[in-house]
Amino acid sequence: MNSPLDWIRAAAASRDAAGLTRRLVTTKTGDGLDLAGNDYLGLRTHPAVIAGAVAAAETYGGGAGASRLVSGTLPIHDELEAALTALTGAPSALVLSTGYAANLAALTTLADAGTLIVSDEHTHASLIDGCRLSRAAVTVSRHNDLDHVADLLSRRDAPRAVVVAESIYSVLGDAAPVEDLIALTDEVGALLIIDEAHALGVVGPRGGGLVAAAGQAGAEHVVVTGTLSKAFGSQGGAVLSSPDIREHLVNTARPFIYDTGLAPAAAGAALAALGVLADHPELLDRLGATAARLAEACGVPTPAGAVMSVRMPGPHEAVDAVELARAHGIRIGCFRPPSTPDGSSRLRLTAHADLDDADLERACAVLETLVPDHG
Amino acid sequence: MNSPLDWIRAAAASRDAAGLTRRLVTTKTGDGLDLAGNDYLGLRTHPAVIAGAVAAAETYGGGAGASRLVSGTLPIHDELEAALTALTGAPSALVLSTGYAANLAALTTLADAGTLIVSDEHTHASLIDGCRLSRAAVTVSRHNDLDHVADLLSRRDAPRAVVVAESIYSVLGDAAPVEDLIALTDEVGALLIIDEAHALGVVGPRGGGLVAAAGQAGAEHVVVTGTLSKAFGSQGGAVLSSPDIREHLVNTARPFIYDTGLAPAAAGAALAALGVLADHPELLDRLGATAARLAEACGVPTPAGAVMSVRMPGPHEAVDAVELARAHGIRIGCFRPPSTPDGSSRLRLTAHADLDDADLERACAVLETLVPDHG
Ligand SMILES: Cc1ncc(COP(=O)(O)O)c(C=O)c1O
Ligand SMILES: Cc1ncc(COP(=O)(O)O)c(C=O)c1O
Repeated sequence: MNSPLDWIRAAAASRDAAGLTRRLVTTKTGDGLDLAGNDYLGLRTHPAVIAGAVAAAETYGGGAGASRLVSGTLPIHDELEAALTALTGAPSALVLSTGYAANLAALTTLADAGTLIVSDEHTHASLIDGCRLSRAAVTVSRHNDLDHVADLLSRRDAPRAVVVAESIYSVLGDAAPVEDLIALTDEVGALLIIDEAHALGVVGPRGGGLVAAAGQAGAEHVVVTGTLSKAFGSQGGAVLSSPDIREHLVNTARPFIYDTGLAPAAAGAALAALGVLADHPELLDRLGATAARLAEACGVPTPAGAVMSVRMPGPHEAVDAVELARAHGIRIGCFRPPSTPDGSSRLRLTAHADLDDADLERACAVLETLVPDHG
Repeated sequence: MNSPLDWIRAAAASRDAAGLTRRLVTTKTGDGLDLAGNDYLGLRTHPAVIAGAVAAAETYGGGAGASRLVSGTLPIHDELEAALTALTGAPSALVLSTGYAANLAALTTLADAGTLIVSDEHTHASLIDGCRLSRAAVTVSRHNDLDHVADLLSRRDAPRAVVVAESIYSVLGDAAPVEDLIALTDEVGALLIIDEAHALGVVGPRGGGLVAAAGQAGAEHVVVTGTLSKAFGSQGGAVLSSPDIREHLVNTARPFIYDTGLAPAAAGAALAALGVLADHPELLDRLGATAARLAEACGVPTPAGAVMSVRMPGPHEAVDAVELARAHGIRIGCFRPPSTPDGSSRLRLTAHADLDDADLERACAVLETLVPDHG
């Protein structure tokens, strides 16, 4: 008799045969230098951030206890939303339980069956899932190709349009033409949903991101999404928008309404991280300098933010480089088909403001031996 | 010139006119007795649970720093997964960042375009969104109607079938015919995805849920989803399944792969809550007794778990009852159309094991005056 798991086991067997099975490996404290994760400012283990998590857990308990609209909005959520508006200059902020949920919430409430979505081909899975869930007509624009976006928008017959992009892309690490996208969408009466997951706390005025850098934090047709899990060393997501859009989300976003509020400790950690960044804007300079040095060692241009992408000849070379780095106590990531947007194999490295000079140079020495066409 | 926010403002105006605008209200510590949230065992603020959150933040930092497959799997995630298998008897567990994400992950990877989904009409938004994202053909079965499920399954022409249910329903609080659903899906070679968000830590052997109560925790065609944000007083979600399905999720579930790992403090709080429950199974008896007493005060049958649903004559009566309870220092929830499955207006109350006798009787005295046809 057949089992309903047969197809799952068959899929596993082909993955295994192709050498593509992914396995969870536990990272222990002290397991080498982290050039793979997204803790860009090194705030995840900063004493003030830990203290923020601890104080919030002690004051409010382990969880929010309910969805935000029922009884799960706690004072620390209000404080965190205020701090996020201060960081970015956005008129209002809504905190959700993850960055993934923030993107699902924004897309499913700002696009519908009467909307044309024009989404960059390199956007994150959470944006893509949001597009699918929205029931909008989705067209994909070539990566960072403004003319293509304009062309697709000009051909719409849907009454509404939404453009979807990341301000700094998660895999390639390059920046979108943010100012131009804001101007174009304004011109044609479209909304712009722009994910600043890899830009907040990384670039822009005091880490306020690329929309703030463009002086457009108050533009009401621009909706910024972000995460608290990268530069802010915690967990959670946020939508930064006009108050009308915030109210729209509160009233209609299923991933907000039907989800438990963000855990107090996560809110407290993120709030503390925002405080550390406000008091120490020099962290951003250190991050930038670290990124430039690592990029040099890898033979790639200085990245727009903290993410570097190094093209490798093939998937085996990429995996070998990761293993060799690990043998030298350095953790880097790799992307292989089918998870790279362009079918190439790549190393993904991230810069971290808390790398000291000795560790940075040690990492660079290793990286120089790993990447092709180098030295 | 039109603004792309015009339709959003128009929707807000009609919501306002209908008196249906929802606003976030901040809950302060000491803001009355909570009979609205989902902290069923009162563990959210239990000293051991707070200590678990604190210790995890101190050991591992504010966040996981990366997705689970990159470098965001920490020893505390492994411990939590082991504790969840011990609680439920499931062969394996995978922890995600929310219960919402757990449902999206299960549905999008276990159902596809070649699948017929038969989903109960009262399932949670996260299960519905998962069904939509899966690209499967979705049919909705009448609430808890096993014959209807069987009938819909018998008419499938898709190669695969998945039945979706909750073991205890979030709004009405009633239980699904779990044993029969397990037997039926087994018979026809379908998978059963069953959300035990309101059952884990509430019912079944030592709080192990209704699949465990049916002695079917090891059945490989049964996939249990759950949350750490209700009885376990924290944040996070889990999929409890055979190891093959866990590996399938690790390799293919976008809301797992492309999402930062659960924050250490949330994992630590949930792990501690599981420990408190294991040491104090009498909490379950207290919860059951509290639920029975509250149900009596509301003139409804003793619920299957901790959620009680009280039908009200109309939306205004429901809102008035919530306001009156608040004036007496008691927080209860209400559901009005369109968010009730059957178009009725209802109060939603939850039992909590940490209510002492004096508070319980005070609450009951208030509730007796609120609900219709009583006393
Ligand atoms: C561009 C982008 N958006 C959203 C997310 C999701 O954020 P979170 O991990 O907080 O769910 C990520 C990464 O995880 C990301 O890289
Ligand atoms: C039945 C059910 N499933 C899933 C969820 C989502 O869980 P979480 O809040 O952890 O995302 C909830 C409530 O929030 C629920 O009631």
